[in-house]
Amino acid sequence: MDVRAAVAFEPNKPLSIETVHLEGPKEGEVLVENKATGICHTDAFVLSGRDPEGKFPAIFGHEGAGVVQDVGPGVKDVKPGDHVIPLYVPECRECEYCLNPKTNLCQAIRETQGQGVMPDGTSRFSLKDGSMVHHFMGTSTFSNYTVLPEIAVAKIREDAPFDKVCYVGCGVTTGIGAVVNTAKMEPGARVIVFGLGGIGLNVIQGARMVGARQIVGVDINNDKKAWGEKFGMTDFVNPNEIDGDLTKYLVELTKGGGDYTFECVGSTALMRQALESAHKGWGMSVIVGVAGAGEEVSTRPVQMVTGRHWTGTAFGGARGRTDVPKIVDWYMEGLIDIDTMITKVMPFENINEGFEMMERGEGIRTVLTY
Amino acid sequence: MDVRAAVAFEPNKPLSIETVHLEGPKEGEVLVENKATGICHTDAFVLSGRDPEGKFPAIFGHEGAGVVQDVGPGVKDVKPGDHVIPLYVPECRECEYCLNPKTNLCQAIRETQGQGVMPDGTSRFSLKDGSMVHHFMGTSTFSNYTVLPEIAVAKIREDAPFDKVCYVGCGVTTGIGAVVNTAKMEPGARVIVFGLGGIGLNVIQGARMVGARQIVGVDINNDKKAWGEKFGMTDFVNPNEIDGDLTKYLVELTKGGGDYTFECVGSTALMRQALESAHKGWGMSVIVGVAGAGEEVSTRPVQMVTGRHWTGTAFGGARGRTDVPKIVDWYMEGLIDIDTMITKVMPFENINEGFEMMERGEGIRTVLTY
Ligand SMILES: NC(=O)c1ccc[n+]([C@@H]2O[C@H](COP(=O)([O-])OP(=O)(O)OC[C@H]3O[C@@H](n4cnc5c(N)ncnc54)[C@H](O)[C@@H]3O)[C@@H](O)[C@H]2O)c1
Ligand SMILES: NC(=O)c1ccc[n+]([C@@H]2O[C@H](COP(=O)([O-])OP(=O)(O)OC[C@H]3O[C@@H](n4cnc5c(N)ncnc54)[C@H](O)[C@@H]3O)[C@@H](O)[C@H]2O)c1
Ligand SMILES: [Zn+2]
Ligand SMILES: [Zn+2]
Ligand SMILES: [Zn+2]
Ligand SMILES: [Zn+2]
Repeated sequence: MDVRAAVAFEPNKPLSIETVHLEGPKEGEVLVENKATGICHTDAFVLSGRDPEGKFPAIFGHEGAGVVQDVGPGVKDVKPGDHVIPLYVPECRECEYCLNPKTNLCQAIRETQGQGVMPDGTSRFSLKDGSMVHHFMGTSTFSNYTVLPEIAVAKIREDAPFDKVCYVGCGVTTGIGAVVNTAKMEPGARVIVFGLGGIGLNVIQGARMVGARQIVGVDINNDKKAWGEKFGMTDFVNPNEIDGDLTKYLVELTKGGGDYTFECVGSTALMRQALESAHKGWGMSVIVGVAGAGEEVSTRPVQMVTGRHWTGTAFGGARGRTDVPKIVDWYMEGLIDIDTMITKVMPFENINEGFEMMERGEGIRTVLTY
Repeated sequence: MDVRAAVAFEPNKPLSIETVHLEGPKEGEVLVENKATGICHTDAFVLSGRDPEGKFPAIFGHEGAGVVQDVGPGVKDVKPGDHVIPLYVPECRECEYCLNPKTNLCQAIRETQGQGVMPDGTSRFSLKDGSMVHHFMGTSTFSNYTVLPEIAVAKIREDAPFDKVCYVGCGVTTGIGAVVNTAKMEPGARVIVFGLGGIGLNVIQGARMVGARQIVGVDINNDKKAWGEKFGMTDFVNPNEIDGDLTKYLVELTKGGGDYTFECVGSTALMRQALESAHKGWGMSVIVGVAGAGEEVSTRPVQMVTGRHWTGTAFGGARGRTDVPKIVDWYMEGLIDIDTMITKVMPFENINEGFEMMERGEGIRTVLTY
């Protein structure tokens, strides 16, 4: 079939909206009609050419929501008409990782996904001249139709609005999951969140949901104070406006350090500050931000010897097919807020404008609708 | 009273056996007659002058066992005749740290202990000319009598031999506790231990005790192969004898990386290798070794983002008054072996010979008896 997709032909060029050929789903695969998709920093990062493993040409997008239109042979858990969210971290429920309750990093299709192809090693997307176009993160939601492995879609309730819950496909789950799955935060905790973008705000509302007593937000942009407060932040710190050492300031503010601290920027300097502002004896620091290729974090080992824990999270430690529907339920039941974070909804055709807004730091999340 | 103690007058000089004056126990303090003491690297480290916070003159030693001879006013949990192990990490059971199940780092007397004095700010030890001699780690076991706060002694069973269980005062508890308290290792784990000295061997026997399926020991000294095997090591790796990258080699040997890895040397390069040879998704790396002052560890943050956990341990995460008597019981019941590790027992007077043996790497642990 012919589909309408935003193709990235080469790094650092605007996306090009093209008619692309999409083959139907093969064994274990499903055809999904995308209804909405968010634009996330990871899309911009790979488009910029800074990811040494980025493949071109490709159809980006990994924060979608849509409806199953067709299924290939052997598909058993979804059927045409089901509402779904594509998963860039699949959940096969059979591999060594899925069977280990300590991780969400299903390895079933990791290699082919990294190569920009479906599990059989080929792409379903091709240009008019027959040349192949890569899939991206196994999701390629910048296309009105896409094909995915069955293990890479989460079935969700049908009354959930596509242009809101698409954000559960990445940002919401990453932030809330970092609190719920990775930190396993208990009520009454003191929390420090570095970076109040889409990820940091979701960490904040996750912390509020599980009963944190103090939620400190740290950002160099003072406009983020009001944003943080909407989601439960109790204290705002702009590092450029305090005298002396930020770590020391934060440790005092939290009466000894954060029980949990989260780095949601992608800066290795902040990752170190996040660790060192965690409480001696038990503080856990979670790295959520993605640093530039090759960058390293450092600290003195006594930070760990005196009881701090340093870890990180991918997709918020969520097992997509199991946890994404739950987070959609939490949204529908009013436990968490997504609407306020969707600062712009626009037609898919305006995708390059959406990327420009994100680069300029305008708003929290732009969603495209088909 | 007059006591016989090994005094460190200045860095890098042999200890001097002296008659020293010891004041009796004050409020909340106990007088302990030391019967045996181990010599540990921490004593040598401070004696070398490399610890910027080391105090002189001082009476070192922190791995003792003895008998309570007298108690000051208000002491309620021990009485004369009780057999005890001095604790360099006390357990007051009242401070914020003691009341938090996630840590063992009681802060009740931290500041005065660091300054080499008792909680009232003075020392019980003095020279003939009346000048004060510092306590060390709150224990000062290189003296036939010593005074300690009640919260810094663990009462143990009376049939436990002093010249063996003194080692529970540091090395045994640190190694076994790193497994049991810090890693909370489950049965069936694959483990990598870097450094097979007294600490590493105790990590190995701790891992065996809780049912590890594979225990890899890493040491540059081939003599340690036989030592590791005595305590449950299943594979030995000498980094100088493998081709190519150590981390890659260890990941393959453990079919994906250690579920738990332990750094028991004090090298920041090894700490990084220990983290990076932990299993993706869930591997936990525990820093036990103490690095040189000011040294830093580094890694790429993706190591944490893909699910590894980096932490550390002091005194094996043990709450001394609660856990040390348990470990003594485990020894008396044959669950763990201490005898084999005590490679030399000699009279207290030979203490400088003991330090020299340790510097030369001879044997695992030397114990001095009074
Ligand atoms: N681990 C995962 O699974 C995962 C998933 C999605 C996104 N991410 C990563 O999370 C990070 C945050 O994403 P986002 O969408 O929230 O980004 P964003 O750009 O919307 O937000 C970043 C925020 O950090 C602030 N900031 C920048 N430098 C700062 C500094 N030095 N100190 C304090 N604040 C500073 C900015 O003002 C901004 O508010 C990115 O690195 C992204 O790649 C990770
Ligand atoms: N965290 C704590 O509470 C605590 C308590 C006691 C001791 N420690 C620390 O634990 C560490 C180990 O103490 P120990 O008494 O076992 O020391 P040790 O000297 O007896 O043993 C160290 C071992 O490491 C090996 N080694 C040295 N360099 C190596 C390398 N590059 N690769 C592999 N192996 C190497 C040596 O051959 C030796 O067998 C020290 O740093 C000590 O200060 C920590
Ligand atoms: Zn994303
Ligand atoms: Zn799987
Ligand atoms: Zn010691
Ligand atoms: Zn305490």
